[in-house]
Amino acid sequence: MAEVKTKFINDPQHITPELLEGYVLAYPNQVKLGGENIVVRANPKSEDKVAIVTLGGSGHEPALSGFVGEGMLDCSVVGDIFAAPGAQRVFQALQLMKREAGILLVVLNHSGDVMSANMACQLAARVGIKVKQILTHDDISAGIGADDKDRRGLAGCVPLFKILGAASEEGKSLDELVEIGERYTKHCATLAVAMRSCTHPQNGETISDLPEGIMEIGMGQHGEGGGGQKPLVSADDTAAEMVDLLCQQLKPKAGDKALLIINGVGATTHMELNIVFRKAYKELEARGIQVACSRIQEILTVQEQAGFQMIMALLDDDHIAYLNKMSNAPYWTTIG
Amino acid sequence: MAEVKTKFINDPQHITPELLEGYVLAYPNQVKLGGENIVVRANPKSEDKVAIVTLGGSGHEPALSGFVGEGMLDCSVVGDIFAAPGAQRVFQALQLMKREAGILLVVLNHSGDVMSANMACQLAARVGIKVKQILTHDDISAGIGADDKDRRGLAGCVPLFKILGAASEEGKSLDELVEIGERYTKHCATLAVAMRSCTHPQNGETISDLPEGIMEIGMGQHGEGGGGQKPLVSADDTAAEMVDLLCQQLKPKAGDKALLIINGVGATTHMELNIVFRKAYKELEARGIQVACSRIQEILTVQEQAGFQMIMALLDDDHIAYLNKMSNAPYWTTIG
Repeated sequence: MAEVKTKFINDPQHITPELLEGYVLAYPNQVKLGGENIVVRANPKSEDKVAIVTLGGSGHEPALSGFVGEGMLDCSVVGDIFAAPGAQRVFQALQLMKREAGILLVVLNHSGDVMSANMACQLAARVGIKVKQILTHDDISAGIGADDKDRRGLAGCVPLFKILGAASEEGKSLDELVEIGERYTKHCATLAVAMRSCTHPQNGETISDLPEGIMEIGMGQHGEGGGGQKPLVSADDTAAEMVDLLCQQLKPKAGDKALLIINGVGATTHMELNIVFRKAYKELEARGIQVACSRIQEILTVQEQAGFQMIMALLDDDHIAYLNKMSNAPYWTTIG
Repeated sequence: MAEVKTKFINDPQHITPELLEGYVLAYPNQVKLGGENIVVRANPKSEDKVAIVTLGGSGHEPALSGFVGEGMLDCSVVGDIFAAPGAQRVFQALQLMKREAGILLVVLNHSGDVMSANMACQLAARVGIKVKQILTHDDISAGIGADDKDRRGLAGCVPLFKILGAASEEGKSLDELVEIGERYTKHCATLAVAMRSCTHPQNGETISDLPEGIMEIGMGQHGEGGGGQKPLVSADDTAAEMVDLLCQQLKPKAGDKALLIINGVGATTHMELNIVFRKAYKELEARGIQVACSRIQEILTVQEQAGFQMIMALLDDDHIAYLNKMSNAPYWTTIG
């Protein structure tokens, strides 16, 4: 193990439990630990309502645990850096959340997460825990119209947590929630662009190879290759190209209402994210599409990588209402 | 002017208006432009209440304009990258905000900001605009117990915006607000640590000189020298040293209630900020100090610099109540 001396950490093997401990100490009215590397609401939701649970590796803060709170996630199961939590830990969380109304497990399409979720659901079925899954696959870098199974889950999961959390607070059933969620995932698309790599905090290795002045549209959350590297162009040209690709996937019509989030993945400044948002908004406006929900924020990061994800979704009026409902999750800003 | 090819921008000379345009498009229910590079609330506060106004350079997003909103700032006057806005523009904002109840202008102690604020207040006085100033000087890198005039304003201004915004919504008078605000600034201290430099987005130059593996405690928001460079130590050792220095300045007693914010300045990950918060919290706990308000967030950045600011303040019960009041400012999370 190479010694890492570029980050404010302690023992590299203790990063995940230490960061979660810090997180729950900072937001004690919202979140607490429900077990080792399991984050739950400080004030649990009433048991007659469906619990919304997710899982995923750490190193992407504030995602995913930053969205645990009233009106959003009930529980987040955390793996080590960029690694899925094991099936046993996911099963432990399902046992914690067990209820007659059922559990909806939101899984980002990454092989480790999918495997852990499937195994945990099998274990849960054996002991009579009612659980269904929703798989997110918003990344469009595999190509327009690619099969869902070939599309990774990116930061488009975060608005989904909000929609499902608000709908479950309203008392929607597990089947209704699956329908509401799938209606969102079907119309959600995300595209990432990377520009400068980051180091893995445990082994000090860079997770991708991007020379100065080069960007890569389509890079995944762990440095997975995307659409090829090319010289950096202006913010406006980058934004216009990305909106065009997202629109090819989603096929919006004039009059549609859309979600537009520019998610900073680490070292790209809020200054830049604002400039990118400006152009993306104008591109949608020119197509007659109304931006009905927007954020410029770091919601899911990739360490100190430079780049961002552009998340777009076509929204129904009930999705918009759910997105605007209050939540006290520490990293979701209620601004409706 | 060197060509900058490491950031998602367009014409380097248009960064500030473009980023502000993107910002108000993303948060239309909260903010709008009230003039060139002047951000105001979308729904203005009633005129019988004191307006809270601030000023400062861009390049530090989401600060300062990210905190315009109901229950927080009424207006933010924005300069170019790392540069104070001119006195004429500040005067223009004071004219916009003119009211019998008066205006409270919060100024971070940086010479350009102070000069613009003083000149604008003189111009305002001539035309009968009622305005008072509060100067923030939370940086302790000039030495424990240094003169207020030698201490720079860092991110400790952000909780002050919240306190003053909530108190003014309650109908406090201008004189009462000055008293409430100065009671906070007197008991607020901030210390910055930098670890990797950033580039100025307009000229491509690095704003400080920090070799790999070296950190500098006390660096200012624009690369100003601090307490000297030294090899990076662990997150826990860094946090413990910083809490110790902040406590030397603030002299808390067991039983005191404190604000503790770890503000990421750019490329330092939320992962690290959580780990630093954890140790800082424990250090305060060991001294018998109760953390009554906390955030782990990028509230005031320095481009893609790596590092963070640790903000601590000893709080009265009314400060705590004001901090917990709702605000819809886009980058202040209401979680009380």
